[in-house]
Amino acid sequence: MRCFVTGGAGFVGSHLVDRLLDDGRPVTVYDDFSTGRRAFLDAAAARPGFRLVEGDVRDEPRLRAALAGHDAVFHLAGNADVRRGTEDPRRDLERNTLATSAVLEAMRAAGVRRIAFFSTGSVYGEPAVFPTPEQAPFPVQTSLYGASKLAGEGLVAAYCAGFGFQGRVFRLVSVLGERYSHGHVVDFVRKLRADPHRVEVLGDGSQRKSYVDVRDCVDAVVLACAHGSGPVDIFNVGTDEHCSVDESLDWICERLGTRPERRYTGGTRGWPGDSPFIHLDCSRLRALGWRPRVSIREAVQRTVDYLQRNAWLLELA
Amino acid sequence: MRCFVTGGAGFVGSHLVDRLLDDGRPVTVYDDFSTGRRAFLDAAAARPGFRLVEGDVRDEPRLRAALAGHDAVFHLAGNADVRRGTEDPRRDLERNTLATSAVLEAMRAAGVRRIAFFSTGSVYGEPAVFPTPEQAPFPVQTSLYGASKLAGEGLVAAYCAGFGFQGRVFRLVSVLGERYSHGHVVDFVRKLRADPHRVEVLGDGSQRKSYVDVRDCVDAVVLACAHGSGPVDIFNVGTDEHCSVDESLDWICERLGTRPERRYTGGTRGWPGDSPFIHLDCSRLRALGWRPRVSIREAVQRTVDYLQRNAWLLELA
Repeated sequence: MRCFVTGGAGFVGSHLVDRLLDDGRPVTVYDDFSTGRRAFLDAAAARPGFRLVEGDVRDEPRLRAALAGHDAVFHLAGNADVRRGTEDPRRDLERNTLATSAVLEAMRAAGVRRIAFFSTGSVYGEPAVFPTPEQAPFPVQTSLYGASKLAGEGLVAAYCAGFGFQGRVFRLVSVLGERYSHGHVVDFVRKLRADPHRVEVLGDGSQRKSYVDVRDCVDAVVLACAHGSGPVDIFNVGTDEHCSVDESLDWICERLGTRPERRYTGGTRGWPGDSPFIHLDCSRLRALGWRPRVSIREAVQRTVDYLQRNAWLLELA
Repeated sequence: MRCFVTGGAGFVGSHLVDRLLDDGRPVTVYDDFSTGRRAFLDAAAARPGFRLVEGDVRDEPRLRAALAGHDAVFHLAGNADVRRGTEDPRRDLERNTLATSAVLEAMRAAGVRRIAFFSTGSVYGEPAVFPTPEQAPFPVQTSLYGASKLAGEGLVAAYCAGFGFQGRVFRLVSVLGERYSHGHVVDFVRKLRADPHRVEVLGDGSQRKSYVDVRDCVDAVVLACAHGSGPVDIFNVGTDEHCSVDESLDWICERLGTRPERRYTGGTRGWPGDSPFIHLDCSRLRALGWRPRVSIREAVQRTVDYLQRNAWLLELA
């Protein structure tokens, strides 16, 4: 199976690329390096079967040409940051919704019909059911990011119904681990390196989130792609754990050896569209035999260690 | 309340315009006449408080200028035909998803924050629950039309969360009545006028659909806009009845005085993405006191009578 990974130079994408190469699959990475990093592909680039095409997914002729001859697309390219949507509402629309449409159209033109789409638990908005299953009540969107990924899911499903595509949709919680380069752990580590004595916490610190280690996440995706049954299969990807922002900050401070004073911006949400509680029901994945191997605490602290060793990411991010 | 109606020259839009004017509201219609008809506005145009701006909703500067000074937007402009999505996948994306984004951005720029968004029961895909409530399990899209309206709903909700908008979302079944100009009744009447002896039926004729009369629909929208409570309120709009394609054809033939031989294209779906069964739970609307006054049979036959009196629509559609 010749694999095509959009956003393959990103945090999750580059781990997926490594894993597909480990499994003996030829892999083409398509990335515009707007947020992806060449350094994340250093190991992959030295291996047989690897190919890199630099390009924007919305450049349809380029994408179509690059896609020819592949069997499956893993579509990760896009804006992955749920915050800041209101700063520029076009960003999520263009980088997620329109980009997904462009990928699907290029696939149709190139005769490639298998797609794994990387969506988000943010599509559940503020759910009423915890842990939240894939068949939760029809959600109401609370962020432009969630709305843009929901739109992408809808397009993938419609191409499955209308054009005989086979789709796998993954609704991820936040992912942690090596090459992590945006989100709360980066923010806290950056702040604490600048001032170890005091730190600002968005919201009241009680928001509860779930996280998954990047290698556990990639295991889940590869397993589900091998086992899904319908034309469209949807999988939550998360752990059975959740932690508060304050707990996560405890673990980060422990690793950094700091005891800062915490200043809270207040409110139950860290930003407009922030979900006060995220906890996904991942029993569909578990039924396939998947188990996360890394706890949230371990994932947070491994991420801190990685950022300490790769301080250049703190400056770039 | 100064009202702004995108797609106000369309079938449903023009009835809404008439109703708002009846209620003493000043109304601006914004329409590009790509599917709307000037004739549908003849009565409205003669009344005080009516204003027409000809334009495409994706022309943001023009839309923004026209919007200034209004209190609420009724956004109906877009592709309203669920069939033919696969002929040109860009159509639903551009006319529905991107157009809705453009309307929301223009509203934000113009400081208008109340929107009634006309969505569709097609967003439920092929639901497992009948009658289907607004809180049905998270649906899987089966048409590009449904996907494009789902994306629009997501954008509306995200603007409510992120920018303090107040949204009303209406998920309509197919609408019938005067000025109806596309859909199965037009198709059958056109075919039977061409050949009263035989008629082709898409699918096996057993698909069951629900319909609502256009004036009942407009009543529902006006009532719900006056009563909704949350930042985003979602309402199904349909009747408690449903009928098969064959039953509907019986009523059409009865009205036309024909007894054609029926030839079925076969299968449980009339086209890719057709839902074999549509029946929405409208108890949220009913709890506000709304009752449809026109039965499906009556709505079908009134539509036939209207098309007989306005045969020009059969040629144009």
